[in-house]
Amino acid sequence: MRLLNPIDQIFLRLERRNQPMHVGGLQLFERPADAGPHYVRDRVAAMRAHCDVQPPFDRRLKYRFGQPFWVDDEAFDLEYHVRHLALPAPGEIRELLALVSMLHGALLDRSRPMWEVYVIEGISGNRFAIYSKFHHALMDGVSAMRVMRRSLTDRPDPDALRVPWQLPRPASATGRTPLADTWKTLRATTRQTLALPGAAREVVRAWHDARDDPAFTRINQAPATILNRRVSGSRRFAAQSYDLARIKRLARHHRATVNDIVMAMCASALRRYLQDNDALPAAPLVAMVPVALHDGADEAGNHVAMIFASLATDVADPVARLAAIRASVDHWKRRYRGMSPEQIMAFVAALSAPAGLNLLTGIAPRRQSFNVVISNVPGPHETLYCGDAEMTGMYPVSIVLDGQALNITITSYREALEFGLIACRRSLPSMQHLLSHLAAALDELEPDDAGHRAASGREGVAADGG
Amino acid sequence: MRLLNPIDQIFLRLERRNQPMHVGGLQLFERPADAGPHYVRDRVAAMRAHCDVQPPFDRRLKYRFGQPFWVDDEAFDLEYHVRHLALPAPGEIRELLALVSMLHGALLDRSRPMWEVYVIEGISGNRFAIYSKFHHALMDGVSAMRVMRRSLTDRPDPDALRVPWQLPRPASATGRTPLADTWKTLRATTRQTLALPGAAREVVRAWHDARDDPAFTRINQAPATILNRRVSGSRRFAAQSYDLARIKRLARHHRATVNDIVMAMCASALRRYLQDNDALPAAPLVAMVPVALHDGADEAGNHVAMIFASLATDVADPVARLAAIRASVDHWKRRYRGMSPEQIMAFVAALSAPAGLNLLTGIAPRRQSFNVVISNVPGPHETLYCGDAEMTGMYPVSIVLDGQALNITITSYREALEFGLIACRRSLPSMQHLLSHLAAALDELEPDDAGHRAASGREGVAADGG
Repeated sequence: MRLLNPIDQIFLRLERRNQPMHVGGLQLFERPADAGPHYVRDRVAAMRAHCDVQPPFDRRLKYRFGQPFWVDDEAFDLEYHVRHLALPAPGEIRELLALVSMLHGALLDRSRPMWEVYVIEGISGNRFAIYSKFHHALMDGVSAMRVMRRSLTDRPDPDALRVPWQLPRPASATGRTPLADTWKTLRATTRQTLALPGAAREVVRAWHDARDDPAFTRINQAPATILNRRVSGSRRFAAQSYDLARIKRLARHHRATVNDIVMAMCASALRRYLQDNDALPAAPLVAMVPVALHDGADEAGNHVAMIFASLATDVADPVARLAAIRASVDHWKRRYRGMSPEQIMAFVAALSAPAGLNLLTGIAPRRQSFNVVISNVPGPHETLYCGDAEMTGMYPVSIVLDGQALNITITSYREALEFGLIACRRSLPSMQHLLSHLAAALDELEPDDAGHRAASGREGVAADGG
Repeated sequence: MRLLNPIDQIFLRLERRNQPMHVGGLQLFERPADAGPHYVRDRVAAMRAHCDVQPPFDRRLKYRFGQPFWVDDEAFDLEYHVRHLALPAPGEIRELLALVSMLHGALLDRSRPMWEVYVIEGISGNRFAIYSKFHHALMDGVSAMRVMRRSLTDRPDPDALRVPWQLPRPASATGRTPLADTWKTLRATTRQTLALPGAAREVVRAWHDARDDPAFTRINQAPATILNRRVSGSRRFAAQSYDLARIKRLARHHRATVNDIVMAMCASALRRYLQDNDALPAAPLVAMVPVALHDGADEAGNHVAMIFASLATDVADPVARLAAIRASVDHWKRRYRGMSPEQIMAFVAALSAPAGLNLLTGIAPRRQSFNVVISNVPGPHETLYCGDAEMTGMYPVSIVLDGQALNITITSYREALEFGLIACRRSLPSMQHLLSHLAAALDELEPDDAGHRAASGREGVAADGG
């Protein structure tokens, strides 16, 4: 019996029926060529046979004196947590995304360990999928992605089945997880660093700069948009893979980073979507983006900060828009360069305090720090397997909040950037149109003579229909 | 914009994440012999083409000044409400029930009209299913069953597809719905009749009788059991059909009613289940049962009352147990016979007030009026069709509450009694064992020379596994 730490308590307190606080991931797999009709069923049975459940997967909440504690679940029921579903024939990806939209909208049972794993069969192209769902109080999105990553192997092996709840090695050993480290730092330092003079000085300087420098995104200046209303309890999930080699080529061409291109894609897609809905504000949208700040030699010294970057959605020309976004991002990076991780965390906490306060109190924000979260978390380059089934795609499924009706989380896998968009289905009708707008944004950035415009999207993913 | 009536407001206020307040129904259909692979898909498309949505299916909640109102949903999204799912192969009924358990545990989105219909394909035996889910504030369980009934036709006709949200005739015209009438009466009369002298006299008399008559179930005397704890948010649904002709024959043999046999089945099954879990209380369980009271000639004058009948689970002999149950039921019927419908409603309201108060306040009951709700609602005798697909079974899916971890609702269809059991999966582990215990209960009541013991269950339904 252990009291939840204050940050994890916040994720419980933030949760409402229209605002579930779990993160998820969707993984697509190809059945081996020789797989029989019971392949997925046998796989589910094998997963359920892994019943030596490890922390935190065996933990459930228990309230004592009004405080939430973690206790072991004495009536653990693996069949409840691991579920077997199927798509109706022909099992197109739009049906898979519709199913994930539905599953992601449902609250987890608080009287059990707050995670669920769905194995979904009957997907066209001889595929199956795994959708996993973890409460943010149990683990954050990056940890969830790490756990899902660690459930896979780097060689096909029918006998080497791993499951998130019973992994061979301790969680700390694998992978770079800058955002997870950020949370750790935040958890460790929030209280102490809020009063740091360095951070306070930076907040003042940020306000100052905003008056003088048009490229700098002033705090709390994000415009009111349809992205920033109260959300309903229904979700729409959309996902697509985009060719990373092409994005890298465009980045080189425009002397930008991959992340700059990703942000330009999002900016262009949002601009077009809001235009289609007659809802584009005059002022540019602001994205909150976690970015890794490299110190140079010391890789362990990497840290992450949140930047509040302009998406320059007031700029019509795609190349000029990319330049404006890059200038905004670079400004923030320069600002952070001289600061320690603790100072940055304190700075971010101060900047996003109105948003956090709004979340906790449920008051719709009058002053909006940002319009949308765009999070790009690096993923594995090598091909991964679930037993002997090759993973062909993996897409993050994040959280939608009151005032933040859209979240765009991106990861990479092999030669693709994998976009996962989750939205309030009611606030953002036909949100899946953003996927084709993202592809069109790449076309816009091609040099005029490139002739790549036809090949923007990749096979294998598409929008949840309707 | 119309304020919700007070009774419907109660169903909203009662709702919590571990206690969703929607009712449902599961219908099983046989695909026609000549149906192609797209049969169910085409059916879903045809259902979604019925977009002239009628009240109350087009209504959503809107809060004003802290009060809930019904308003038209100006962003109605039929694709959201009508969903297409499939079972993994081989699509056994236990998988269907596991899926319904999962779907029934999820809260409805309050920012939309609070109903969902799931069309589920891939069920063994060339079958498909429809699971429907309606919030109790929108309609009560009997109205929901009536609406589902009215969506079916009495002849197979591929062109005659009906949907609950767009029905040809007004709702009042079809079917006997005593429980719906009861709610109507309750809604109309609760306030006025609570002070009726007749009812007050009956309450006093009931307490009096309890001291003198051992067959009479005293108010608030239900024992504490595992059925009467706080519930989790996870559900288990179990359903099975039992041969009505056999039950009728047993009723004749024991000079009892069909309803008496149904209650004896539940009593025997609960006794055995609680024994298996080492949790059978010494005192007999009490069931709250809505019963129709016939006035004789005037069929429109039928009314329903709640009785709090002893299940005589302290009696080991099945035949003696049936006799004790029958005596308790008859006692209540006699008591009600001299009362007007308004008096009965007031009487019931007074008797169940502690339960209602417990529900509203969320305080676990110290005094328990009853242990389990057993509700038997007559259904159609004739074969019904969804378009050209024959319905082979229909099972009610009711509500589980804090303190009421099990609900048994029964209806009839053709020559079968259709049991739908819904329970908190955590409070009642392996609840589906009740199904075989229900079958065994029929065997117990057979005359020694009958030799029917082998044929207790019917094909077509089984427990959700695990």
